[in-house]
Parts: sequence; C-alpha cells; structure tokens
Amino acid sequence: MTAVPAVTGTATAEANPNIALIKYWGKADAAYNLPVTGSLSLTLDTAPTRTTVTLDDTLAADELVLGGVVQAARPAERVRVFLDLVRALSGRTERARVDSVNLIPTGAGLASSASAFAALAAAASAAYGLGLDDRALSRLARRGSGSASRSVFGGIVRWYPGDDASSYAEPVPADLDLAMVVAIIDAGPKTISSTVAMNRTTATSPFYPAWAESTTAQLDEMLAALDRADFTAVGELAESNSLRMHATMAGAWPPVRYQTAASIALVDAAGELRAAGVEAYATMDAGPNVKFLCRPDDADRVAAHLATVDPGARFLSARAGRGVRLLGSSE
Amino acid sequence: MTAVPAVTGTATAEANPNIALIKYWGKADAAYNLPVTGSLSLTLDTAPTRTTVTLDDTLAADELVLGGVVQAARPAERVRVFLDLVRALSGRTERARVDSVNLIPTGAGLASSASAFAALAAAASAAYGLGLDDRALSRLARRGSGSASRSVFGGIVRWYPGDDASSYAEPVPADLDLAMVVAIIDAGPKTISSTVAMNRTTATSPFYPAWAESTTAQLDEMLAALDRADFTAVGELAESNSLRMHATMAGAWPPVRYQTAASIALVDAAGELRAAGVEAYATMDAGPNVKFLCRPDDADRVAAHLATVDPGARFLSARAGRGVRLLGSSE
Repeated sequence: MTAVPAVTGTATAEANPNIALIKYWGKADAAYNLPVTGSLSLTLDTAPTRTTVTLDDTLAADELVLGGVVQAARPAERVRVFLDLVRALSGRTERARVDSVNLIPTGAGLASSASAFAALAAAASAAYGLGLDDRALSRLARRGSGSASRSVFGGIVRWYPGDDASSYAEPVPADLDLAMVVAIIDAGPKTISSTVAMNRTTATSPFYPAWAESTTAQLDEMLAALDRADFTAVGELAESNSLRMHATMAGAWPPVRYQTAASIALVDAAGELRAAGVEAYATMDAGPNVKFLCRPDDADRVAAHLATVDPGARFLSARAGRGVRLLGSSE
Repeated sequence: MTAVPAVTGTATAEANPNIALIKYWGKADAAYNLPVTGSLSLTLDTAPTRTTVTLDDTLAADELVLGGVVQAARPAERVRVFLDLVRALSGRTERARVDSVNLIPTGAGLASSASAFAALAAAASAAYGLGLDDRALSRLARRGSGSASRSVFGGIVRWYPGDDASSYAEPVPADLDLAMVVAIIDAGPKTISSTVAMNRTTATSPFYPAWAESTTAQLDEMLAALDRADFTAVGELAESNSLRMHATMAGAWPPVRYQTAASIALVDAAGELRAAGVEAYATMDAGPNVKFLCRPDDADRVAAHLATVDPGARFLSARAGRGVRLLGSSE
C-alpha cells in the first residue's frame, strides 16, 4: 500500500535577488524583522531562486530540499518557523515539502535569503491557499528575511520601516536604465553571518545611531535623485551609503570586516573607472563580493577593467529584473 | 667683502616619530592646533629628524633646507610661520636658516611632521634663547604640528586637549615593554594630506561626534590597561581605535580612504598572527602603511609573517624611543 498525501496543494514560484543601494542594517524588532531604517534596492534579472511547496501530511515534519539535498536541522528550522506562520494565517495545519533551487551554481556568491524567502513566501502562500496581494506578500516575505520584502517587486524597490502592518516594500518608478556588474571574488562561506554581524553592530558600534540617521537622510536624497533621473547622484549616494555601512561595522567590537584586500582593490577600481570617464559605483553587502552600479552601455567596459584588477574574479552582468512570479499551482 | 651674520645663535636637535595608539583626528581650533580629543602614542627609537636652526640676518627671508635641498614656497612658509611664533616669544627678530634631515631615506613613509616640528621647536627655541621646560616645548611643538607635541617625550605619551595653555603632552609611566613593526608598503606621496582629510572628516562625516566620544572613552580604557600592564587590552584598544578612525573617514564625503588593498591584507595578517598565538595589533595613520604593536620578543616573527603576506613591503622594527634632545647650541 502506498501513502496517499492527504492534501495535494502545490505551488512553484521564482524570485530574484536584490542589491541594496541604500542599505538595510539593523533590526528594530527581531521577531517581526522590522528594520531600523528604510532601504532601497535594485532587483536583478539574474540568479533567481525557484521554490516548490507541496503540502504532504504523510511527512513527520516539514522537509527542506535545497538543490536536491535534504537539509538538516539549521536551515530547515528557519523554513519550518516560516511555514508555521503561513499555516497560522491560512488556518491550515498540513506539513509541507519545500524544494528549492538556485538557478546559478550554489556558492557563486549571489544565492540570497532575499530571493529564497520571496520565492518561498509566494509558493507557500499559494500552496496553502492564502489570497495575498503584493503588499501582504511583501510583509510575509519580510518575516522570513528582511530584504526578501524587496524581492517581491521588480526594478527599484523601497522598503519602509514601521510596524508589522506598515513595514512592506513597493516599487519606485524611475526613468533610469540601470545595470549591475557583480564581481564574485569569494564563493566560500561567510566568516560571520549577516544576522550576527547586524546584531553586533547595533549593540556595540558607536557609529550606529549616526548610521541610522544618515541612512534615512540618504534614502530621501536617493528618492530625489531617482525622481530627477540623476544617475551620478544615484551612484554617489549608493557608494557612500555602502562605505558608511561597512564603516559602522568596522566600529563594532569585535570589529566586523567584510572588506577583504580583493574587495578594496575592486572598490578602488570604481574610482579608476570614473577617472577614465566611465561612471561605475561600488557597493558591498555582508560578504567580500563587490557590485558595481553602471549604465547598461558601460557594463562590458566596467567588467573588462575589473577583470584586469582581479583576474581571478568572476563577473555577472545584470539589469533590472522582475519581481516574484508564480509558475504554477494547484490545490 | 663677505657677509657677516649679525647673530651666530645656532642649535641642533633631534626628535623621533611617534605612532598614536589612541588617535588624534580633528582640531577644535586650527590656529592653535588644539585637538578635539586627547590621544596617546608610542615614541619610536628609529627614523629621527635632525634639525639645525642658525640665526642669520643676512638672509632676505627664513630659509628651509631639507636633506640638503633648499625648499620652495609651501613647506618653507609653514616653517616661517612657526619661526614667527618663536620670534614673538623671544622678542627677537633675526631671520634663520633651518637645515633638516630625516635619518632614514626620505620617502620611506616614516618621515613625519611630528618628529620634524618637535626637532624644529627644540632647535629654534634654543637658537633664539627661549628657556622652555618640556611642557612649554610640547605646547610650542604643537603649534607646528599637533602630534609633534607628543614627540617631545619618549616612550608612551599622552596629549591633552584643552586651550593653548593646557593642551600639552606628557609621558605616561607604564610597566610594559612594547615593540612596533612598521610595514612600509607605499613610499609615494599621500593621495590626500592629513590636514585636508581631517578637516573634511570633521565637516562631513556623520560619525565624527561618535568618534570623538568613543576616542575619549578609549583613551581612559587605554590608560587603565597601561596601568595594569595588560598588553592584550592595550593592543585591542589600539586596533579598534584605528579601525574607528578610518571608519570615520570613510563616512566623509567625498570618502577619505587610506586603507589600500595591501593595507587590508596586512591588517588581516594581524588577526592571522593572533590566531597562531602571536599577539600583534594593527594600527594605521593618514597613509597606507600599517604599524604592528607587539611584544619585543615577537617582533621578528611578526615581521617574518608579514613578509609572506606582502613580499614587496619593507619592514622597520622599532622599540620605545627617547624624546627630543638638543645635540648642541651656541649663542
């Protein structure tokens, strides 16, 4: 006799990573993933996460499969907590199997919790029959990972601080065609997780209050720069905000330092490109990779110069991408 | 007929550079070189500046000779302003010839305005017949370059903030034998002068107020660590304070960045050394070179490891050195 799943609800969704131009760094509330400040990002058109959620009450517990490999306690637990939330919202109780793949090789440095939880939020909410609009989906994705709230939308996206009801993301219309060259210099595991780094920064860096204030001001400046389609101002604000985030981390104790020698050489290369008349602006997140904001027509030239600076790096060229999309579901 | 100098007052003094363990970054008053915060340094036993001041009223103007080469407007002007101050204090009016040499090759990255103005203050005050005690000499040297106030003294030295009368340096007794390994990775000219960098930081970095507050607290912690001869705490405080200073600069607009890729690789190497049981702590000033505080017995091992990280760098090993000394004078 074969086991027959009690429920056949299943859904598949795909979401892209996003790169913050005005960074999210620090939680006002850890349980709800409410940020201290607003942030703003560009959703990329590359490296999506594709996730299928299948309800299956024959499972002893929720199951997480990443790239075909069943996951043990740690990552699976985070997904279970998220599914509990979806079940609470849906009033349903079935366990589920979550099958997720990153559509670029794992370890390329762009597999992100933003694309992962945006895709999971969309697939799970469809599989459990929640009827969520984009804003509600953004709020739900936020509970899994803060920056996932932004990957629900395509293009340029702003995420609001606030309470559980008011902290969601939404697209920002902008008459600017942006490209991003991602320099992948280290595919190894992070030396320190972004959650630990974030908490240590807010708890111990003397710069944290000024960081929060400065970021709020730079977000306003960024929105104004986008509104007048001022690419130079957008790039300068992005580079400054990134430097300030990493400066705030360096002030923590023990210091949090994601900028390796290879990262610094690449950040310097952005200045070299600008001196040569090519506008490229560097931004970094919780890892050593460096992302370069540039105009689409300049992307090849940017990547070519960066390759001379770091011949061992790999480069990914991206444009503005779409938000999360449901690829299919049945209940 | 040969010109006969109207006055034959002459004096020679020698002073060593100092490396701040708690940094001076930001002026409360530019005319008097009054610092925003206190600072603390180690005077080195290497790379002194030797300066002779000879009064000579046959000169049309004060003359500055560096390493045998007569200097044009810019550096000479700063020395003239300083000599005007000495003349005002002495009630004398003679012009002077200043002959200064750095006793390591120029451009090695350790020629410092601290040793230069400490030596000049001592030589000029002797040549002009000012009878200054060490504290008055420290105040005078401060007018030439803030950190020169510290090079008046040997060993560990604290410089007080305050007004013109109360802002001077003095030695801090400590039962700790310290060594410093200086990694010279770039002998080229600075990309941005420390004065410009300092002013830009205080004017535009959102982190500046927190930097000042944090440095004042870290100076107190450093004095307590020295008092109990706690080498580990001294090193950790020095490394943290340096990272915070460079973080504060990175927050400026435009950003001030002295940390090159080579610098970061060496700063990382301090962590590698500690992981291997050798206590070395990195500190950086307004340039790409990195200085490592360590125990004298570890200096060779520190330099050997650093050489594997940056085979192109040169290394200078130093211990605690003496304060300024008068080598001879006549009037």
